[in-house]
Amino acid sequence: MSSSTEERDHWRSVIRAFDGYMRYHLSANHARRMAFLSLPKESKEMFDGIGYRDKLDAVDEGIRRNAEFIEEMIATPVFADMLEAEESEQRRLSTSQSPQDPTSHSHSHPHAHADPAPAHNHSDGTKGHSHGSSSSDSKRAQGEADLAQDKIRSTLRSFVRDWAIQGRKERMACYDPCLEALEKHFPVLSQEEDESRIERDRGSVRVLVPGCGLGRLAMEIAARGFASQGNEFSSYMLIASDWVLNHTTHRHSHTIYPYLHSFSNHLSTMHNLLLRVQIPDVCPSDVLGSGKGGAFSLVAGDFEEVYGPSSWDITPPREQDEGWEDEGRVNQRGRWGAVVTCFFLDCARNVLNYLRIIHTILEDNGVWINIGPLLWHFENSPTASPTGEGSIELSLDEVKELARRVGFDLKEERMIRTTYTGIPDGMLKHEYNAAFWVATKRSAPTPAVSVPSGNGDDDEGDLGF
Amino acid sequence: MSSSTEERDHWRSVIRAFDGYMRYHLSANHARRMAFLSLPKESKEMFDGIGYRDKLDAVDEGIRRNAEFIEEMIATPVFADMLEAEESEQRRLSTSQSPQDPTSHSHSHPHAHADPAPAHNHSDGTKGHSHGSSSSDSKRAQGEADLAQDKIRSTLRSFVRDWAIQGRKERMACYDPCLEALEKHFPVLSQEEDESRIERDRGSVRVLVPGCGLGRLAMEIAARGFASQGNEFSSYMLIASDWVLNHTTHRHSHTIYPYLHSFSNHLSTMHNLLLRVQIPDVCPSDVLGSGKGGAFSLVAGDFEEVYGPSSWDITPPREQDEGWEDEGRVNQRGRWGAVVTCFFLDCARNVLNYLRIIHTILEDNGVWINIGPLLWHFENSPTASPTGEGSIELSLDEVKELARRVGFDLKEERMIRTTYTGIPDGMLKHEYNAAFWVATKRSAPTPAVSVPSGNGDDDEGDLGF
Repeated sequence: MSSSTEERDHWRSVIRAFDGYMRYHLSANHARRMAFLSLPKESKEMFDGIGYRDKLDAVDEGIRRNAEFIEEMIATPVFADMLEAEESEQRRLSTSQSPQDPTSHSHSHPHAHADPAPAHNHSDGTKGHSHGSSSSDSKRAQGEADLAQDKIRSTLRSFVRDWAIQGRKERMACYDPCLEALEKHFPVLSQEEDESRIERDRGSVRVLVPGCGLGRLAMEIAARGFASQGNEFSSYMLIASDWVLNHTTHRHSHTIYPYLHSFSNHLSTMHNLLLRVQIPDVCPSDVLGSGKGGAFSLVAGDFEEVYGPSSWDITPPREQDEGWEDEGRVNQRGRWGAVVTCFFLDCARNVLNYLRIIHTILEDNGVWINIGPLLWHFENSPTASPTGEGSIELSLDEVKELARRVGFDLKEERMIRTTYTGIPDGMLKHEYNAAFWVATKRSAPTPAVSVPSGNGDDDEGDLGF
Repeated sequence: MSSSTEERDHWRSVIRAFDGYMRYHLSANHARRMAFLSLPKESKEMFDGIGYRDKLDAVDEGIRRNAEFIEEMIATPVFADMLEAEESEQRRLSTSQSPQDPTSHSHSHPHAHADPAPAHNHSDGTKGHSHGSSSSDSKRAQGEADLAQDKIRSTLRSFVRDWAIQGRKERMACYDPCLEALEKHFPVLSQEEDESRIERDRGSVRVLVPGCGLGRLAMEIAARGFASQGNEFSSYMLIASDWVLNHTTHRHSHTIYPYLHSFSNHLSTMHNLLLRVQIPDVCPSDVLGSGKGGAFSLVAGDFEEVYGPSSWDITPPREQDEGWEDEGRVNQRGRWGAVVTCFFLDCARNVLNYLRIIHTILEDNGVWINIGPLLWHFENSPTASPTGEGSIELSLDEVKELARRVGFDLKEERMIRTTYTGIPDGMLKHEYNAAFWVATKRSAPTPAVSVPSGNGDDDEGDLGF
């Protein structure tokens, strides 16, 4: 099967999953209704008395509203065609219609079927109610549907994180320190001169945001005048970010119900389970339209493939060098003034690869700003990568030491407490103690000088025995 | 298959899982080593330089130490016999040797194979490295092994929560409010008289702790002079609590490594991943030995079966009524001065059953003390109970209203922030906002008077639409 056929099939399966959101979740809620209806009469009356039946109905209605929103999100002509092609099994999309990257050129998705669920998005574990055959095939199909719908629920919660008033606290904790560090490193020209820096127009500073999710941080960077590029691998996120960045026209135009998929740990049905969230809190076209802000683009694809070694020694025709439109073919070496990794580093199978790429694609004296935990996404992943790579999982002290050895000077190190797509006022909060640092690139890697206490020597006794 | 045969098979599978802990986890760590060894030479040297190979070796060693501890824990003659019988496939244990309840009579375990993983123990997701056949049978066996080993890791972490200095903060947050409320409700005789209470000897006050886990809270209640009984369903927890309560001889006699199964979210390999924890922080025989404290017992079995309707109208021979030894046959109606539910209520498929049982088994004016979140253990469970029950999942406002309707007066309601078997100083913390209350029993259920805002009427608009 050719790569483009695989990609098309992958994208079609994602669109089909979005299209199947309503049926899947109404079915899951129907299982709850059946559990309720099977109760003895007296118990049923007790639960009726506290509104349980109304709650189930309200959740059905919320699922339908979410489905209407999703329908609109995938209603762009390209996706609509895909669904139609899927249904008729006749037409085939030409490769030129590939929606893989709405704003830039294509990059291949060889991991498309191997990527784990986004680990920072804590699964709320909803399962559709399966009927009929329990054969091995049907179980695998059910498992795939469960995974796909989990990603859709994560996408809905990501809208809160990036594009709703309710996500403001998370954004302040995670994005503000990154933006402040970036602005401090590249002060505006009017600012009092600092001898240690070469001041320049922010529009000439390229800033890369790998794992940009729904794009808010990347947009805020562009809004501050930088030339900002987001990179994202998840097709679910790409479809959603395309919608919010390119197809919204005014703030609070849409309402979603992000928290009705799990009934656990809600203080109140009304105020928590059925919380309505309006999106977007700001309209990207208001922020970046009419020539405001710096250049802004999104590139779809795997970070290592787009920015890794295969892109380090390209000599493009001179006239294309500055063109965002042909991003996939430019030389990435030394191209970026800043790389901002927010909840991204632990997406690596081998974080050394990420560190080397970031180091290589930065300009000399370029800055790498990081915030995030170390929830290694591929820990315990049953499958190796297509190239046979397993997973390497470091503690924070080891990541920092490795970064130094790769050629970074780490500064402003601190820990920041924050959540990630958390349920506001939920009875269970996943709180991260995220590591923040600002690192500058030493132009050539230096030999190791320090060793973390107790590691790197042969005295096993130092490791706790 | 008879119930006793099923039970024996279940217990044997649990003992076999404990016995297989070392092989399973060394295999999982071996997968990490293979990922490391497959790296290109230069990368391998970088990771070697920061001590990654030593870390893998240290984790192997920690797994072996944990296995030695587990081996000792299951080294009681009954369990040893089981393993031997398993291996030889010859001898069969007589039912009189059933270890199901080390301190009391047996209760059946019809859910033994259907119980979900303990939901408060956040899985660290370690997976053994599977080899050989990928047939459907082998996949199911692997899935069962994964689940069993997850429970063993939870059990190790529960030792920290209940029986280590490192768990002190969790115990202070969860257990202290329960103990304080209990002591306030049953003041010691020497205390200044309070007209509203009938003071009596604490030794005559029976206190039940359903879902008692490794038994610390139940023991602390006995230590304060009450007649305390713990009830637990999980065979893993029962084996571990039997060991700590009945077979430890001095504090800090054993060392375990509870956090080396997941490599994610550790600040430091030395201080977090490889953290050594000494258990027990106090020796139960020092606390309760030589006639100190009140009576103390543990009953194995499902809460609804042991304390539910089938036990409400038993008329035992008078001389057995007070005997702890024959707990399974006494009349539970009105038997308990207090019921203390700590992280237990959400174990219910149908919380109304739990509320009614607690209400029925309490004396008039008995007290129900609760703390916990609402992480409904059976939400999205694919299987109904043997009697066909599904799962009913309420928000906190609904649970409280239901409790009032069942016949409780709720007092001292507040929320308490706490973790549950959390990793100290981890970069990801599961923080619960747990609901606490002290409820007294009204002797007869009263008709409902209040309805939670927006629930229980037919105006769908009030539910958010």
